[in-house]
Amino acid sequence: MADSQPLPSWNDGAAKSAILDLVARVTKEGGADFAPPAERIATFDNDGTLSCEQPLQTQFYFAFGRVKELAAKDPALAERQPFKAVLEHDYNTLFGLGLQALYELAFATHAGITDEEFIEIASAWLATAKHPKIGRLFKQCVYRPQIELLAYLRDNGFKTYIVSAGGADFMRAFADEVYGVPREQVIGSSVKLRYDAGGDRVSLSKLSELNIFNDGQAKPLSIGMHIGRRPLLAFGNSDGDLPMMRYTKSGSGARLALLLHHDDAEREAAYDREFRLSPLSEALDKAQDYGFTVVSMKRDWKVVF
Amino acid sequence: MADSQPLPSWNDGAAKSAILDLVARVTKEGGADFAPPAERIATFDNDGTLSCEQPLQTQFYFAFGRVKELAAKDPALAERQPFKAVLEHDYNTLFGLGLQALYELAFATHAGITDEEFIEIASAWLATAKHPKIGRLFKQCVYRPQIELLAYLRDNGFKTYIVSAGGADFMRAFADEVYGVPREQVIGSSVKLRYDAGGDRVSLSKLSELNIFNDGQAKPLSIGMHIGRRPLLAFGNSDGDLPMMRYTKSGSGARLALLLHHDDAEREAAYDREFRLSPLSEALDKAQDYGFTVVSMKRDWKVVF
Repeated sequence: MADSQPLPSWNDGAAKSAILDLVARVTKEGGADFAPPAERIATFDNDGTLSCEQPLQTQFYFAFGRVKELAAKDPALAERQPFKAVLEHDYNTLFGLGLQALYELAFATHAGITDEEFIEIASAWLATAKHPKIGRLFKQCVYRPQIELLAYLRDNGFKTYIVSAGGADFMRAFADEVYGVPREQVIGSSVKLRYDAGGDRVSLSKLSELNIFNDGQAKPLSIGMHIGRRPLLAFGNSDGDLPMMRYTKSGSGARLALLLHHDDAEREAAYDREFRLSPLSEALDKAQDYGFTVVSMKRDWKVVF
Repeated sequence: MADSQPLPSWNDGAAKSAILDLVARVTKEGGADFAPPAERIATFDNDGTLSCEQPLQTQFYFAFGRVKELAAKDPALAERQPFKAVLEHDYNTLFGLGLQALYELAFATHAGITDEEFIEIASAWLATAKHPKIGRLFKQCVYRPQIELLAYLRDNGFKTYIVSAGGADFMRAFADEVYGVPREQVIGSSVKLRYDAGGDRVSLSKLSELNIFNDGQAKPLSIGMHIGRRPLLAFGNSDGDLPMMRYTKSGSGARLALLLHHDDAEREAAYDREFRLSPLSEALDKAQDYGFTVVSMKRDWKVVF
């Protein structure tokens, strides 16, 4: 399993060392921190941790396209908030809604279709949709050092999970192809589903009502429900990841909680507490108290994309 | 992957043939029904499908022991229903409560402890607790033909899941050891959890409030939430499994929905619609309409335990 040159896109330094050290400890049979493969769980936030979330998380571009379609059929919609703000790219109004309300809007635009239809629609969109600033496919606006880290962990017997505030079904449309994470290892926000057995084919229809908004404390709670084990490693980039990271780091034995700091305006973006949709503040201020390892995009990553 | 003599505890017949046929079809590369490994999901009910549920599902014996402990500390409890019925082994009263209420009672007896503590307590109980009629460990009151089937499916690239009305954390205490199913592939009923960050160690505490009662339509809905894929094979034994079986069977391509019929009073038990906690009625009556394959314990299984 050992790779003589793991994580080639990571610069040598404290962050890379901490990762290599954790993996060495938990895989060393007979060692004090050895963890059998069943216990090797790693959880990653998605937006801002595995992929670019600036100026907006990917799913909103997808949902906003859907708002345009709906407004074309129903012009009255274009005059109502928050649809008006979407159509006018009025980010100030949209950011004022907050992350949960914005996701609820996004989810509502796809109510009524089945989960299987939704994944097809999202997959088709993702096949051609490009990031407005980076100019490449959204699917390619993911961080190369993180793709290497996910693969390195799996090579060492870890199961890698995504635990994100983003919609689970949206992420399931690309997580396997892009991250090597199968659908069932994607935990995200979700709407309630309805069991429809009226026709010949039994299906699950997406409703507009929120089931779980998977951010903040909801992340460790959903890890408890879906996985039933405390992770050995968690990786986040905002205060929405703080409870998952504390839950992970405070377990017994060797554990690692990594916090990506976007401090690289040249290669990607430099932001933390001022990003209203998903600020990084307490997790950064208390990183030392909580034992988090801060990853500087500028210092620790040789390449970004 | 192919085993020259798969499923040795299954008698030759329609049920065994249907299983072998499904696996042959979905694993034949280039075949019309080929399913890539990512799509090979199989879901099994637990109580009555993988393990004996007569006269009661295993988790109730565990919870009833806890009721005794609580009543010893608080004698007034022994005079109140439903605790009185538990202490007096008054099954008639208990069955009248119904499956959900009985599980809610079971869950409430372990409120306040963390999910990690619960799994330790349940594991310790399971290490020595014996079935009152069968006389062996509860962990050994599982069906050998099903253990073979789970392993056979995994040998052919399937991910095997448990999707049960039983408590997820209780099943997680034995599913890996007994069924080879890791904790994260156990989907069950659950209580709400609370994120506790008060002390040095962040933990998840079990509350008494029900989160999901995973029976009936909740089964396909939880498959949608946890897995995000329609299974290729589902196995149940009661009307509580009917929606999961219909959902599975009505997908495109080769699919199999199997229904275990307990018709073997000599080797285990003979029951269906009269078992008040979890009756088998509609699923049996409409098996042909829905395309279910009925498995007769008496006819199709060479051995039971």
